[in-house]
Amino acid sequence: MTTTHAASAALEYARQNREVFLNRLFELLRFPSISTLVENAADIERAADWLVNYLKDIGLSEVQKIPTAGHPLVYAEWLGAEPSYPTLLVYGHYDVQPVDPLDLWHTPPFEPAVKEDFLYGRGASDDKGQTMALLAALESYLKTSGCLPLNVKVLLEGEEEILSPNMGVFLAKHQQQLACDAVIICDDSILDPQTPVITYGLRGNCYMEVRVSGPSGDLHSGSFGGAVDNPLNVLVRMLAALQDGKTHKVLIPGFYDRVREIDDEERALLAAYPSSIEETLRLTGAPALAGEQGYHLIEWTGVRPTLDIHGIPGGFTGKGKKTVIPAWAAAKVSMRLVPDQDPDEIQGLFEKTMRSLAPPTVKLEFKCLGKARPAVIDYRHPVIKAAAEAYRRGFGSLPVYTRTGGSNAVVAEMIQHLGVPVLMAGLGLPDDQIHAPNERFYLPNFYRGIETLIHYYDLLSNTRLD
Amino acid sequence: MTTTHAASAALEYARQNREVFLNRLFELLRFPSISTLVENAADIERAADWLVNYLKDIGLSEVQKIPTAGHPLVYAEWLGAEPSYPTLLVYGHYDVQPVDPLDLWHTPPFEPAVKEDFLYGRGASDDKGQTMALLAALESYLKTSGCLPLNVKVLLEGEEEILSPNMGVFLAKHQQQLACDAVIICDDSILDPQTPVITYGLRGNCYMEVRVSGPSGDLHSGSFGGAVDNPLNVLVRMLAALQDGKTHKVLIPGFYDRVREIDDEERALLAAYPSSIEETLRLTGAPALAGEQGYHLIEWTGVRPTLDIHGIPGGFTGKGKKTVIPAWAAAKVSMRLVPDQDPDEIQGLFEKTMRSLAPPTVKLEFKCLGKARPAVIDYRHPVIKAAAEAYRRGFGSLPVYTRTGGSNAVVAEMIQHLGVPVLMAGLGLPDDQIHAPNERFYLPNFYRGIETLIHYYDLLSNTRLD
Repeated sequence: MTTTHAASAALEYARQNREVFLNRLFELLRFPSISTLVENAADIERAADWLVNYLKDIGLSEVQKIPTAGHPLVYAEWLGAEPSYPTLLVYGHYDVQPVDPLDLWHTPPFEPAVKEDFLYGRGASDDKGQTMALLAALESYLKTSGCLPLNVKVLLEGEEEILSPNMGVFLAKHQQQLACDAVIICDDSILDPQTPVITYGLRGNCYMEVRVSGPSGDLHSGSFGGAVDNPLNVLVRMLAALQDGKTHKVLIPGFYDRVREIDDEERALLAAYPSSIEETLRLTGAPALAGEQGYHLIEWTGVRPTLDIHGIPGGFTGKGKKTVIPAWAAAKVSMRLVPDQDPDEIQGLFEKTMRSLAPPTVKLEFKCLGKARPAVIDYRHPVIKAAAEAYRRGFGSLPVYTRTGGSNAVVAEMIQHLGVPVLMAGLGLPDDQIHAPNERFYLPNFYRGIETLIHYYDLLSNTRLD
Repeated sequence: MTTTHAASAALEYARQNREVFLNRLFELLRFPSISTLVENAADIERAADWLVNYLKDIGLSEVQKIPTAGHPLVYAEWLGAEPSYPTLLVYGHYDVQPVDPLDLWHTPPFEPAVKEDFLYGRGASDDKGQTMALLAALESYLKTSGCLPLNVKVLLEGEEEILSPNMGVFLAKHQQQLACDAVIICDDSILDPQTPVITYGLRGNCYMEVRVSGPSGDLHSGSFGGAVDNPLNVLVRMLAALQDGKTHKVLIPGFYDRVREIDDEERALLAAYPSSIEETLRLTGAPALAGEQGYHLIEWTGVRPTLDIHGIPGGFTGKGKKTVIPAWAAAKVSMRLVPDQDPDEIQGLFEKTMRSLAPPTVKLEFKCLGKARPAVIDYRHPVIKAAAEAYRRGFGSLPVYTRTGGSNAVVAEMIQHLGVPVLMAGLGLPDDQIHAPNERFYLPNFYRGIETLIHYYDLLSNTRLD
């Protein structure tokens, strides 16, 4: 299929308006829409309002901010194509991760700054930049042809970074309103500007906080050290017992029971992904890698589950020293899950194992901070074939295929509630520093991405999806 | 020996001036003289200046603030007694511990508040209250007889809570100026108001910070979890390997090599100390105790060494969740030491063991945050006999004997550099919450303490110490 006239006009518009798109992204990036911090709730609202105005401006209908139990959704649609054309649900998120440690940022996280080909700022890549690419591609059609090549519903979320606690309920309640033939989510990274990537699987997540309480107040370790079991001492013993430092396997009994092994065809597909230990070392700066014994790099982050400790609150963590036996210590622990692990079951196994490891000197409390099901879609589906061709047109090369390590509660929820395939596209790069200081977005990917998405909408309009 | 006329007059003065003494202590407590925090350095200076003024006011000579590489010392003397009388070096400290977590304090830590018989505030017990008792006893003599019953040198420190890093050098350089027959330090607790305690041993300390570095920056645990060893995961495995959760022994090879076991006479002396598991549970609120296998409660905190983790900086410790593989994680670990463990040697063993436990995925850095030698003095020495009698007169009962778990770098340094016995007296109570929120001082102990110290100076004036 060749490029249609409408797509050509949209592409020309996109090329002429790069500066405009960039300045619009600046505006969205200036909202510190950190979804995990209560004090930023008003910023989230302001970001949502800004999106509502933008979607109205470019000509979408039914534009509205939809309240949830948490942060609002933004919805819009354009259903002017014949019913025989597919309906695509376009998803992005406008919330971002926290920014600490702030002192490691070279420029303020919410004052977008361009240096050479990069745009710096929290959310530049994850996911405001990629969301704006999805929308700019729509704008490019609407401002030229006055219509889109297919029916489109837009759903933008403000809680992705806190694992979308209200998305499942919303999707279940609004299956009719959101009915579609496919979903596109653009919230991922490609390997490099010459190597686009199609992600057809995502790990799930079970994020737990466990609190170990000992004495009723902080104690002086001189007076009581040796008699009162220190909650931090206990906690590290328990956390260490969850991991095998040699095989890098998780030692929670039953943890691997439902893990699906991949077949040879899929292994070959994934093996074409040009990753290497050397490249990962270069990207991360780690002195050496350490993955699960018996598996390869590509499987470590895509196909195998993990357990990571993210922080150990409790005691004295300031500068200097304090000789305290803390009354409590806690650990933030997340487990990345793969099909067919079930986050609820894993939570149960985690709690049971921790209870079995706890000595009588402490009491335990658990909090689940978020859960996401793992997801995998058929890599041979037409929505993925169309995406491959769109990438070829936009980036000049066919993509490689991968299953990525991150979680996205939304993907699993959409597969479950909407019953359609979800294309996980991406315009980020592996060193975009998402979730870390100095997050950035490679601007040529932003511009090529808009063109790729114009092609994708065009290609999908002639694809039978039902 | 009966009480002398001078002592009787001093006792009478002390009884008449309790309110005055209390108000003076209020003034000293209002200085937030936290020695471990750089930002409080000026408060330390102001507290020292206040002490200089007070010591001049009550009639001591050579009063001066002596600069050190860290916080200043305050020195004063009264050498008006015949040379045949003993010279006593009176030591206290005017620095305090940090106050976090601040939200657990019921009253602001640096606004002293009296509720019932307790004075609340950081330093109330450790050690401003006890230091002021030492000085109020001197004042009581000087304001009545115009002289003291023995020669006195006063040395007040501003770095005790950071393990007295400059005291050793100062003592070594000023052995002549500080020459004395005995030292009294009042920085300890008694069991209850009816059971004074004489402490004849202190544990030492070796306070280490170890930093485990992995990737060059924080990483997203979705993208890299499973491939990049998480420094927090590594650190907890290493810290767990230092402890036996069953026997509660420290697993650092060589750690116990120099630990002196006590003989039956000393075990019997210590057994008279009326401690119990039940009482310790009540005091601490711990669900259960856990001490080293093969030893008893009194030995756990006084005679046996420990390893305590005080805090694990690194990663995300705020509210909510962040899916980060931190670039680094650190642990603040202190080891309480007993005779004849050597802090330098223990530091070496700690570092060697941690290095042997570290996988190639991380790099280690060590910082020693403080060291103190363990100390023990002969419990049959005349300075201890005199103290027992002073306590009997001041508190109405003879003391019990103990070796306490806390560290005091000064005691070991004084024994080493001045070559004299050090009496470790105390007026605090075990639930004074020293180093913790809501530190307090039992005011009847303050007033009885002043009287006890008046008796002690009196009794010591007739004791042959050379």
